[in-house]
Parts: sequence; C-alpha cells; structure tokens
Amino acid sequence: MVSDKFFAVVAGVGPGTGRSVALRVSEFYPVVLLARRSESYNDVVAQINNAGGKAIGISADATDESSLASAFESIKKEKGFGNLQLVAAIYNVRPNSRPSRKPFLELKLEDLDTSLNGNVRGLFNFAQSALPQLLKSVDSSPLPPTLIVTGATASIRGSKLWSVIAAGKSAARILTQSLAREFGPAGVHVAHAIIDGGIDVPDAEHAARNDATPDGKLSPYAIAESYWNLHTQHKSAFTQEIDLRPFNENF
Amino acid sequence: MVSDKFFAVVAGVGPGTGRSVALRVSEFYPVVLLARRSESYNDVVAQINNAGGKAIGISADATDESSLASAFESIKKEKGFGNLQLVAAIYNVRPNSRPSRKPFLELKLEDLDTSLNGNVRGLFNFAQSALPQLLKSVDSSPLPPTLIVTGATASIRGSKLWSVIAAGKSAARILTQSLAREFGPAGVHVAHAIIDGGIDVPDAEHAARNDATPDGKLSPYAIAESYWNLHTQHKSAFTQEIDLRPFNENF
Amino acid sequence: MVSDKFFAVVAGVGPGTGRSVALRVSEFYPVVLLARRSESYNDVVAQINNAGGKAIGISADATDESSLASAFESIKKEKGFGNLQLVAAIYNVRPNSRPSRKPFLELKLEDLDTSLNGNVRGLFNFAQSALPQLLKSVDSSPLPPTLIVTGATASIRGSKLWSVIAAGKSAARILTQSLAREFGPAGVHVAHAIIDGGIDVPDAEHAARNDATPDGKLSPYAIAESYWNLHTQHKSAFTQEIDLRPFNENF
Amino acid sequence: MVSDKFFAVVAGVGPGTGRSVALRVSEFYPVVLLARRSESYNDVVAQINNAGGKAIGISADATDESSLASAFESIKKEKGFGNLQLVAAIYNVRPNSRPSRKPFLELKLEDLDTSLNGNVRGLFNFAQSALPQLLKSVDSSPLPPTLIVTGATASIRGSKLWSVIAAGKSAARILTQSLAREFGPAGVHVAHAIIDGGIDVPDAEHAARNDATPDGKLSPYAIAESYWNLHTQHKSAFTQEIDLRPFNENF
Repeated sequence: MVSDKFFAVVAGVGPGTGRSVALRVSEFYPVVLLARRSESYNDVVAQINNAGGKAIGISADATDESSLASAFESIKKEKGFGNLQLVAAIYNVRPNSRPSRKPFLELKLEDLDTSLNGNVRGLFNFAQSALPQLLKSVDSSPLPPTLIVTGATASIRGSKLWSVIAAGKSAARILTQSLAREFGPAGVHVAHAIIDGGIDVPDAEHAARNDATPDGKLSPYAIAESYWNLHTQHKSAFTQEIDLRPFNENF
Repeated sequence: MVSDKFFAVVAGVGPGTGRSVALRVSEFYPVVLLARRSESYNDVVAQINNAGGKAIGISADATDESSLASAFESIKKEKGFGNLQLVAAIYNVRPNSRPSRKPFLELKLEDLDTSLNGNVRGLFNFAQSALPQLLKSVDSSPLPPTLIVTGATASIRGSKLWSVIAAGKSAARILTQSLAREFGPAGVHVAHAIIDGGIDVPDAEHAARNDATPDGKLSPYAIAESYWNLHTQHKSAFTQEIDLRPFNENF
Repeated sequence: MVSDKFFAVVAGVGPGTGRSVALRVSEFYPVVLLARRSESYNDVVAQINNAGGKAIGISADATDESSLASAFESIKKEKGFGNLQLVAAIYNVRPNSRPSRKPFLELKLEDLDTSLNGNVRGLFNFAQSALPQLLKSVDSSPLPPTLIVTGATASIRGSKLWSVIAAGKSAARILTQSLAREFGPAGVHVAHAIIDGGIDVPDAEHAARNDATPDGKLSPYAIAESYWNLHTQHKSAFTQEIDLRPFNENF
Repeated sequence: MVSDKFFAVVAGVGPGTGRSVALRVSEFYPVVLLARRSESYNDVVAQINNAGGKAIGISADATDESSLASAFESIKKEKGFGNLQLVAAIYNVRPNSRPSRKPFLELKLEDLDTSLNGNVRGLFNFAQSALPQLLKSVDSSPLPPTLIVTGATASIRGSKLWSVIAAGKSAARILTQSLAREFGPAGVHVAHAIIDGGIDVPDAEHAARNDATPDGKLSPYAIAESYWNLHTQHKSAFTQEIDLRPFNENF
C-alpha cells in the first residue's frame, strides 16, 4: 500500500530516468508526473495505476513560472491528492542538448537560453513551488523530505562542444548546492546527482541481472535506486552530491 | 543466513563507523575485523556471532606491510572462511588526529608521518591485499565487489590546524580515485566517502528514530547504511564519491 | 607610446576593477570601454586620454545581443581605431547583486534573470563578438590574444543567501572554461579570475605602498596587475584560472 | 644590483623549472640553490655569478629532516648571506616519478614512499625551515614574503598509472593550501602551481619568441615568469593557486 499521507512529484518524464524514478517512488508514495506533453507521462501513469500504485500526470512547462505554479496548485484538487503532503520532489527536466553541441561560434543566443531555461529557470520555479511544501512535511514525515536534481558531468567541467549546456548544468548544480546549505538545517534534504554517461533504454530484466550494456550506458533503474537511497538517508548523514557512472566509463 | 560464498573485511574498528559497518555487512556476509588491538573488535565480533552472524577478529597493523599481508593470508585458515571469496573491503583506519591539530610550526615530522601512515600507507597495503581477491570475485558475485575508503572533509580542503591530517586524507582520496579509475573497468567498485562532521556515540534506538543529535553528529548506523547502498549499486551506475554530513552541519 | 596595431576592450566599467584594468591596459594599447551608461566611463576615458593614452567609451548593454554587436561594429568607425586589431578583451560586467542576496523563498524569477543576464548572457554576447577578432590577431600579435572574465567565489560555491548570484557566476565560469578548452589550441588565451573579497575604493597611493585596507578589500590596481600578467603569459604556459584575495581573507 | 637585504632559496634544481626560477629570481635577489647533488646546481650557480648575480649551492636532501635544517643553518655562515633575510622560498623537488608509473598491483610500498618523501615530507621539512624566516621578513620586505610549491595535475586528479604519484602530489597541494590559510593572515604569500604538461628543454631564445614547442611542452622560463609574478602580487590580492599549461594541451 502506498502512503496515504505523503506524495512525490517528478518533473521531467521521458523514457529514461524520469520514468524509472517515478516507478521506484510509486512503490511508496502516490506520484505526480509533470511534463510538457501528456504523451510523455501517459504510459507510466497507466503502468503505475495498473500495478496498484497511484499516479497522475499534469502537463506543465517548468520553465514557465505561472504554468509550474498552477500545476502545483492543481495537485490539491486532484482526487486522492487533496490531503497529501509533498515529501519528495525530483527535478529531472533535461533540455534537448543535441542542437547545442556545436563549436561556440556556431551557437546562437537561443541555444544558451534553451540551456538556461530548462536547467536553471525551470529548477528555480520548481524549487520555489516544492520547497515550501517540503518544509511543511519536515515534522510529520518519517523520512526527511527530499529535493533531488538530476545533473551531469558538464556541471563541473566545461568542454569544447558543450559550452552552453555546461553553463546551464553548472548553474543548476550550484543553485542546488545553495539550496542544500539553506534548507538542510531546516530539515529538507537537497541533493544533486552527476550522471556521467548515456542513459540506457529501459529494460528491467537487464537491470535485474546487474549487467551493464556493452556500450556502457547507465540503467535508469539503477539511477532510480540511488535516488531512493538518497531519500531514505538518515538526517544525521545526508549526501549532498553523488556521481553515477557505468563501471566501464572512462573518467 | 549469511552468505556461504563471500565474505567482507573491515579494517579499522572502533566504537563508531567501523563497528556499525561490520554489523550492517554481517547481515549478509561473514565478516573479518582487522584492528591493531583485539580490544577494539572483541565486543563486536561477539555481538555478531551471538546474533547468528559470523565474525572473526584479527590483530594487524595496516601500516605494516607484512602484518597486513599475513593477516589476509591467515583468513584462509580460519574455520569457515577457507572457501569464501572476498566481496567487500572497507578501509576505515583513522589515525589519531588529535595530537596533530596544531599550528604548523608546532608540528613535528612524526605528526606528518602518523597521518601518512594511517591514511595512505595503510590504505596502500590494504588495497594491495584486497584488490586481487576482489577481482577474483567479479564473475561470481551477484553484487559488484566493492572497496570503500572512509575519508573526511580535510581530504578536499586544507585548513589552519589540520595541515598534516589534510595531507594524509587528500592523498588517500586521490589514491582511492586512482584505484576507481583503474579497477572500475575490471568490475570492482571503488568508492570514497567524505565524512563531514563528528561521529555520534553508537545508539541504535536513536538512529531508528531518524533524529540527529543536538550537537549535530553523524550516526555511524547511517554511515553504514550508505556504505551498504554503495555496495549494492548496479554496475551500470557506480558512485565514486559521496559526502555524508548531518542536516544541520554548516558547510 | 601605445600600440598602433592592437587595441583592447573592457566591458563593465565602474569605479573598481573595470576602471583599473582599463588604466593598466591603456599603458600599452588603445582601449575601448563599454558600459551601459556614459557616466560610468567618461572620467576614465578622459583620464587615459589626458595621460597620453588613447581611449573611447561606447554605451552598450552587453546583455542585449544587438546592442553589443553594434558596439563592436562601431569601434571600426572610431577615429584611430579603424585599423587596429583586438588583442585583449576583458568581461567585467557585474550585475547588481545586492537585491538578490535574499533567502531563496523571497527571491523572484527576475532576480535569477538579472544574474543570468549579466553574468552569462552578456558574456556569451561579448565572447561571440570578441573571439572572432581575437582569433584574427593570433598570428600577428607578439602577446597571445586574451579573453579574461571576472568571476567570484560564488562561481565555485553556492551559499545560503547567494543562490541566484552563484548560479550566474558558476555558469559564467564553466562557459569560460569551455572557451579556454576550445580556443586555447587556436592560440587565444582564455582565463577566469575568482575575485574572493570586496573591492577597495580606488586609491593608487595606497596600492603603491603594498598595504591592504584594514577591512581586507582587494585593491583594483592589484587585480589589474594580475590581469595584465595573464595577458603577458607565454603561450606555452597559460593560466586558465586564478584566485585573488586579500592576505587576511578567511577562506 | 641584487638586493643587499633579502635572499631567495630554491629547493630542487634540475635543468628545467628549478634552474629557470633561480635565474629569474637572481635578477633581484641573491639565491641559494638546494639539491641533493652538487652537479645539479654547479652550472646555474656559476651562470648567475658570472652574470653579476649572487648564488651559492648547498647539497641537501629535503626529505631528510636534519639535512634540510642544517642546510638552512649553514646559509647564515655563507659569505654575503649572513645578514640577508629570506623573502622567497620555492619548493620544486620532484621525485623521479618514472618508476612509479605502473599498474597499482605492480607497485611496491617503496614506490609510494618515494612519492610521499619527495612530495610531502620534503615539503614539510622545507616549510618548517623557511616559514619562520619568511615571517621575520614580513615587516621589512617591500614585496610580501612568498612560499611557492611546484605541483602537478595529478594533485587534483587520480589516474590509472599515476596512483602513488597523485597521492604525493595531492598531499603536497592540500598541505600548501593549509599553509596559505595559516600564514596568509600573517603576511606570507603561500601559493601552489599546477604544472599541467611536460617541461621543455631550456632554450631562452625559443622562449623569447613566445613559441611553444611542436610537442606542446611548457617553457621553464615561462613558469619562472609566472612564479615571479606571484611573488610581486600585492598583499590585497594574493593568488593561492595557478594552473600552467601549454596553449595546445588537452585538458
């Protein structure tokens, strides 16, 4: 049985990390999935509900202040969510970085803006909505309320073709670190994950065998497991940052 | 029932982290505890055996090459350990740092040596003995063989009164990182933990309540839980380094 | 006599670093000063020209793509600058961070935008205009063409009240690092300076005495000297990042 | 004319950095060169004295506490050095790292000890002797008394074949950082240089042309220039760490 007191929200749901995190979290909490388009979350919402969990999807653009705020508002009106308190919030919005992988002089200001919007401004909006709710759960939740942000190696290392992506990722990382320093003492666990490598196509069987793919990608199920372990950490021993990479990744 | 194929070894057992890690690991594996003096491990060895687990203690000085090597040799002759393979090795030796917390010009070369011995040379010896055995378990162990090294904030940050302690801790950290880069691709998970704060006196009840102490110390049970989670990580998503600190620690 | 082949441009001119850097650079090169308002550069332009140097000011908003581009265009039409090539470009635009030093939940999205605009988007525009010109000077300039970005400690460390400032600073730092990795091999020296402390009011006499102020602020003349030393570095030994802080700063 | 009040000491003199730093410093100060074998410093001592500077060489093993201490003692008895005060101390001892570039399991404890001895223990001894003398010069020296330590990329990054070298380098870096935090407020400038690349054979002409070698090595003259610039930094704007690498180095 999932919790009847607390719920989780996952922003940014694609076939990879967002979906796996939502599935993992749904074993304990009702889950709200936020994505720009309903196609992104419909399948996983159905999968969770069919499996005896409880999930809803809400279409919202995290980079749009009012869209995000009204998405959070609307949760309260959703059936079965009205009395729940937020206990876990995962920001997993990944702006499409492919068009921005270019030599710097071929980039346009829009490329930078795309990165800043998805990586930083969306996170800002998400944190503004989620943190007040997480703070309210500090006293009642058995597990410390948690905000987890999905990041990347580019957050700590600039490189030739990744300039604007790295700019956005590093801003998100330091913003998250600032939030950890501000909200940790208030009891909210804020953590940043540096995903170092490509994400595998979802394949639960494969993950169960503890294999890694021949091409060295991360299992999103494994990422979700580490996120869950962050959420269950004792408040006397919070992790602020983890790196996650395939055993055979060169780093 | 603990494993009848694999065992774990914990070097450095005091009343804090080492003891808690040994207890946690003993739920799954027979455990060998290494410490300089038998007083350090006698109680926890008894506690594990009384609880239905399997533990032995061996007196060894990690900073002494031959002492450490012969300790590893002698494991094979211990009853019930002869056919077991090593699957988890935790280096938790903490040189007494109290006498070395001094202004630099009041330090002696021995203070530096104490830090280098316990933090780096002992780790070198431990890794030399443990890694060949961990490599042998890669194909047969369901969980990736794991080497975890307990570190500290001083490993990434020098400071006024901690100069020689920081030197030893940072050498241990970079040595561990080097091992991760070398042995990860071979299937061994090598991780470093930055413990940022004082360790609480052991108190399992207190830990169960998910409180933190008023004075903001880390529960060694919570540290042990995070170490265990490192060991259970899928090989497609290894963490190389985690930080662990009380929610109310200023960092 | 200042160079009759090369010129420098300094974006962001206030009473502190920008002014001192312009003065230092003007001993060798004609200088273009960019600032939003002419009041910011009028005095220092006059000071340089009176001292036998050559300087012009152009009003431009670095955060506005077309304003910045047309400022760079207009340089060519300025008397005495038409035939000069760009050899040093310093980005010193500091968004007013005072209103953004607030608890996170008191911040508005505009506060984040102010930080991202001045720290990152302005730098992006500036680098887009400056780098093609710096590349053209690689073969003819005796000193490697140089792009220097003024940063801050917040670029590597988030903190409680500095969340959005840190986000902008860290994005600028990693963007600069990316540019160093991309344009270094082409012969352009790209460097980032972490200014760790407050900037002193300008006082050349005081600086000449090699004092530091009682309140431990950085002399902008000293910062300018280190920037100049970056510009004069041999291409076989470029520095990508320096930190600069008062001797008595706690760090 | 070189100073008749202050002198400099350079520990670790080979054909590369040590020699070039000694030459650069000798333009302003009498210099003491320390090396294990007199063959290492004889030529450069002669070169400095022939050029109108003042230099002596003393054979000493930095890794030997008493050898180093007696070397510092003996300086006072050297003709022309008896009344001079120490104002710049450069630690440039580089243990031969070639034999230690091996897979970890092929290393011996001696390999680690070689790295720790030259990188850390020698630096400890050197700093113990130099810092009290540098402190005495704070009030009288126009330039802040300076301690510079030559480091390497391995100090911030472990890697496969560099495990024990990295351990020593990172310990030296954090020790240096600790000293900066302790002695900066007392007026001594302590800095660490991360040399990222191979050192070129000395060739002053080549350096004068501001070329880099085809194979991308650092000019030791360029390194010396940056060290000198560290020494001349205003006390309100000390740099604690610089990186130095060829423009075409991949990093």
